Amino acid sequence: MSSIALDPDRLFPVDPALRQLARELHQLVADLPILSPHGHVPAELLLNNQPFGDPASLLISPDHYVTRLMHASGIGLDELGVAGTQAEPREIWRRFCAAWSIFDGTASGYWLRSELVSVFGLDEAELAPERADHLFDQLSAKLATAEFRPRALFDSFGIEVLATTDDPLDSLADHQALAADPGFSGRVLPTFRPDSYLNASAPGFAERVDRLISEAGDGLVGYAGYLRALQNRRAHFIESGAVSADHGVRTPSTLRLDQAEAARLFEAAIRGGLSQQDRDAFEAQMIYQMARMSVEDGLVMTLHPGSWRDHHQPTFNRFGADTGHDIPFPVSYTEGLRALLNDFGTSPGFHLVLFTLDETTFSRELAPLAGFYPSVFLGAPWWFLDAPDAMLRFRSAVTETAGFSRSAGFVDDTRAFCSIPARHDASRRVEAAFLARLVAERRVTEERAAEIIVDLVDAAPRRVFKLGASAGKSPS
Amino acid sequence: MSSIALDPDRLFPVDPALRQLARELHQLVADLPILSPHGHVPAELLLNNQPFGDPASLLISPDHYVTRLMHASGIGLDELGVAGTQAEPREIWRRFCAAWSIFDGTASGYWLRSELVSVFGLDEAELAPERADHLFDQLSAKLATAEFRPRALFDSFGIEVLATTDDPLDSLADHQALAADPGFSGRVLPTFRPDSYLNASAPGFAERVDRLISEAGDGLVGYAGYLRALQNRRAHFIESGAVSADHGVRTPSTLRLDQAEAARLFEAAIRGGLSQQDRDAFEAQMIYQMARMSVEDGLVMTLHPGSWRDHHQPTFNRFGADTGHDIPFPVSYTEGLRALLNDFGTSPGFHLVLFTLDETTFSRELAPLAGFYPSVFLGAPWWFLDAPDAMLRFRSAVTETAGFSRSAGFVDDTRAFCSIPARHDASRRVEAAFLARLVAERRVTEERAAEIIVDLVDAAPRRVFKLGASAGKSPS
Amino acid sequence: MSSIALDPDRLFPVDPALRQLARELHQLVADLPILSPHGHVPAELLLNNQPFGDPASLLISPDHYVTRLMHASGIGLDELGVAGTQAEPREIWRRFCAAWSIFDGTASGYWLRSELVSVFGLDEAELAPERADHLFDQLSAKLATAEFRPRALFDSFGIEVLATTDDPLDSLADHQALAADPGFSGRVLPTFRPDSYLNASAPGFAERVDRLISEAGDGLVGYAGYLRALQNRRAHFIESGAVSADHGVRTPSTLRLDQAEAARLFEAAIRGGLSQQDRDAFEAQMIYQMARMSVEDGLVMTLHPGSWRDHHQPTFNRFGADTGHDIPFPVSYTEGLRALLNDFGTSPGFHLVLFTLDETTFSRELAPLAGFYPSVFLGAPWWFLDAPDAMLRFRSAVTETAGFSRSAGFVDDTRAFCSIPARHDASRRVEAAFLARLVAERRVTEERAAEIIVDLVDAAPRRVFKLGASAGKSPS
Repeated sequence: MSSIALDPDRLFPVDPALRQLARELHQLVADLPILSPHGHVPAELLLNNQPFGDPASLLISPDHYVTRLMHASGIGLDELGVAGTQAEPREIWRRFCAAWSIFDGTASGYWLRSELVSVFGLDEAELAPERADHLFDQLSAKLATAEFRPRALFDSFGIEVLATTDDPLDSLADHQALAADPGFSGRVLPTFRPDSYLNASAPGFAERVDRLISEAGDGLVGYAGYLRALQNRRAHFIESGAVSADHGVRTPSTLRLDQAEAARLFEAAIRGGLSQQDRDAFEAQMIYQMARMSVEDGLVMTLHPGSWRDHHQPTFNRFGADTGHDIPFPVSYTEGLRALLNDFGTSPGFHLVLFTLDETTFSRELAPLAGFYPSVFLGAPWWFLDAPDAMLRFRSAVTETAGFSRSAGFVDDTRAFCSIPARHDASRRVEAAFLARLVAERRVTEERAAEIIVDLVDAAPRRVFKLGASAGKSPS
Repeated sequence: MSSIALDPDRLFPVDPALRQLARELHQLVADLPILSPHGHVPAELLLNNQPFGDPASLLISPDHYVTRLMHASGIGLDELGVAGTQAEPREIWRRFCAAWSIFDGTASGYWLRSELVSVFGLDEAELAPERADHLFDQLSAKLATAEFRPRALFDSFGIEVLATTDDPLDSLADHQALAADPGFSGRVLPTFRPDSYLNASAPGFAERVDRLISEAGDGLVGYAGYLRALQNRRAHFIESGAVSADHGVRTPSTLRLDQAEAARLFEAAIRGGLSQQDRDAFEAQMIYQMARMSVEDGLVMTLHPGSWRDHHQPTFNRFGADTGHDIPFPVSYTEGLRALLNDFGTSPGFHLVLFTLDETTFSRELAPLAGFYPSVFLGAPWWFLDAPDAMLRFRSAVTETAGFSRSAGFVDDTRAFCSIPARHDASRRVEAAFLARLVAERRVTEERAAEIIVDLVDAAPRRVFKLGASAGKSPS
Repeated sequence: MSSIALDPDRLFPVDPALRQLARELHQLVADLPILSPHGHVPAELLLNNQPFGDPASLLISPDHYVTRLMHASGIGLDELGVAGTQAEPREIWRRFCAAWSIFDGTASGYWLRSELVSVFGLDEAELAPERADHLFDQLSAKLATAEFRPRALFDSFGIEVLATTDDPLDSLADHQALAADPGFSGRVLPTFRPDSYLNASAPGFAERVDRLISEAGDGLVGYAGYLRALQNRRAHFIESGAVSADHGVRTPSTLRLDQAEAARLFEAAIRGGLSQQDRDAFEAQMIYQMARMSVEDGLVMTLHPGSWRDHHQPTFNRFGADTGHDIPFPVSYTEGLRALLNDFGTSPGFHLVLFTLDETTFSRELAPLAGFYPSVFLGAPWWFLDAPDAMLRFRSAVTETAGFSRSAGFVDDTRAFCSIPARHDASRRVEAAFLARLVAERRVTEERAAEIIVDLVDAAPRRVFKLGASAGKSPS
């Protein structure tokens, strides 16, 4: 059995001198624990610790990175069991094996190969359409064993911290139960994600906000109750171990409004009488408010703008959100963030981690912003850009302006639990490859490169996401 | 005689391991036939098969890639015989030889060197100002021989398919005569290019549309006659072998209007009473209509947005269009294509090939779009981006999201007939260079890399442009 | 004593064949004189030739490239002596040594290391927090010696031409005194920088313009006096050796207005009654007027758009401009420059050097513009982009379209006098690295690469900035 996924030099530059340097740097971080301060694995998975079932339901149907490319090749999402559609898992798996070659060269293909070979021990040569049934049976059998249950994998993956993404009104009972469970020693943190409570264009906004206020508004009503409720829920998240609040916004606009104007917009938003422009203004001012609350309560603020969600309306209508057709568009942070940064950019302890899908902002905006504002940190290349070449472009574009110290470290942002080790390892390999080049070009000393890669992989996410230095489940 | 143009390793990476891999991959496709599904060589050239005449009139005057850079260095377009201006070909050639060094490092310089050395057998060392007359005579003598007539070159270049670009009202008599000519076995396809019938800002729009309707509208008038005439002319093109319709638009905006509103805009466009905004809306809705017709009649739709045509008005006034001063500007596809893709993005058999001059769209929009919509394919790096480094940036930026299977294959898009082999070969070399790196970084197996490069060069253009698998002149 | 800053192969590619080629190319230009046609070192520095004082006041406090990154790491600008704030130089220096590692991988870090090791002869191993006092004393002692006075450094740096940046109403007495000083043989040129006289949004605009007209308007008033005064001051600068006029504009918009409309806007601008849109229009038309004057008087026009100045208002309020928070934003030249280029793009002798902070314009706009317009030249990668990787991206993105002949050569644009040699050398190394690759990929011959690098480093800035071929202080 052999596979390129087992090559110890995968993702390293081919030049022998660089490769040797990259190897040595990677060695320093290869076995460090995984810190995953932003992702989409549910806490329930680890709480219940049930077997994953079949390989299609684990690896294909729920992963829109995977299903989108199969969809592009002509396979319907209903043939892939997306969004609960009925499709025989074995049939889905056959379709996947038949389409396997379309993933060549993609980040998803790299992760999948790595999972199948390294986690599940498959022989890559078997990933052929005619071996699909055999593989399906083989994987299903493994998934039924104790060592492939979620908690066992959590341990074998070497995960120290795993953040989930949660609705503000989530009771976080799963998190609390997990934290109290003596049979689980990992640290699983909730993340406050209030998008649908801030974006007045989201369907059901008024009802949702109404529920928020009534459940957490301390009896206050209107805009005051709304702010109080958000504040209270953030506090609840913090009590349950949350370290960050995540904001998936359309654009990085921020706006400071006076209380009366903000309240007026809020009331109109609830009544549904706002223009698109005013709904945008309302969201922009709420992002400003979220920053203000982060300054007060210490939750790290992460911002994920620039994706046109649900681009294909018919697919959204049938299969819902997160089904592979969120398409990025041009973004600029410089003007949009000005209101927020003017007031909070130098606030002590405030951490704002900026993510992007628009590479043009790497050198033009993100590095200059992070190179001045103590609060601004560079989020790892995200989503489509979480890929070896894109990560190298990111490092090349930001480092000359912002150095390494402004990086927030890697986040996997995934719902594909089994891909977590491959993703983190790929990131570590690319950091090693980039630093190897800087050493070889005499731009960084070998000694410092060794310190830098450990900082990027371990200390930076602890520092920027306020994870604390120690392992174990108790927040530090 | 020697030249860097004859180095078998040209354009390959310098690292020995990568170079060896690139060589092997290139070998697999080096001799495959040329498929050129989009370009600007006229059918008349091959029909008449007349000698090309002198080297300046062949290689310099008609090629705005070449004349623009000489213009930048201070040589007037009238000194280069552009647009029929009177200039002695021998003088033009002398100017070219004197300016030869300005092409160093450019794609045009690479192609020119390759043509002169590989096609015409010149000694590169002679490309010096003082040898200009000698070279002119040498080239003129060759061009007078039988082996340098268009059809002979077509054969020696190994061209299997060559698409032209044609006006919707073109009778296509040249294509038909060529197809019927027993002395020519190549396949020359017309391409439907309706830009000036869709863009109400184009001079002479009303007269042109009027003629279109009266010639092909089946007696219908107004908007109905207009749509019918376009449909009929597309059918005529398809009968004459066309496989695609090409759209050189300012922006990639599309718009779905109801029939009455579209008809109202059409009538106003004809009368000349439309605002710029309404003319843009009219074009956007006509691009939508073209997609609808492509869904119905199967013509592959190619979209070339983002060039500010005729940037320098005085040059346009004197020399006309395509004289070297079309300048790209920022483009975004995500919002603009939404109307079209919502209705036709998953239509069976619909092929939409997207080109760009704005590299920022590679990873941000084009790869994500092609990675979901079965209809969307990645056009090759176009025009200024049809160059070795830019092609590598393209592959690096799109592959991690969209893989290789969403590529439409190379198009040369050229009116410089003699540059066709150099262009295709350069593209094949860059694909080999890119794949070599992915193999060396253990991201693609050697076996798959070999399959991928053959697919990119041969099967992809056949598949995406519906060229059929077999050689020969009959459309499959 | 050893340092990566002393490695003769620093910044060269690691591949042995490329490195050897790069070495040979760099050798050809390593010792050529420094031509610095755009920068911010004041003439007074060389006129007075006083000792620099302490290292913090020389290297840290005035350099916003350096202080911004220390600010990002949590050190207040007041702790760094920015803008005349009181901080003990020795304390500043300690803070710098403690923070030294944050500069790893940055361009500033590269320059600083190079200065400290190559210019000041420090042992890099000593750049540790605990050695800060020792280094401070060592540097202070050196700075007190004759060989570290400005003129001595000017000579030892090998500077032939140094341009300053000056207010239009500057008497240029320092320049004149310096030119007349028999004890100084360098050539120090003023540069006409009229931003604050053209931008009606700038504080104090009306008063400044009023003074301009009364001092230089030949008794004319209003718009006519304003134009005349600008013209007169340009003439004064030319008499004092100026070769260029520099324009730091928000966007590259240009506009041709008729005289009456321009005068009307001018009057309203002076009265303060203009909307932001009209102020922008006024500036756009004044950039057009500056081009017109450049066509007439021959001053090279340099354009630096795309920076949001003073992004953090509180820092600006306390510390003033140029304190590290100018943040770039998206820019497009294609439409904006059209008015200017339509009228002056082919004017004989007109030179327009375009700079950018937005890399997206490299291949999309700048190379196509410079590849057609004889007046347009590619400015070196600027500010945040004056860094090794960014310079390579620039060359890769522009060369395939515009070749090498459209480059204006390197400008250091610095106020950090001691960093000048490191900056120029870094640029020369990167040019060598880029050309080495093109040679190895058989895209440029070795002979031509040798000519090209000498042209880029020496002939191009002389040609584009009209510096003349000869050394010495008299303008040619």
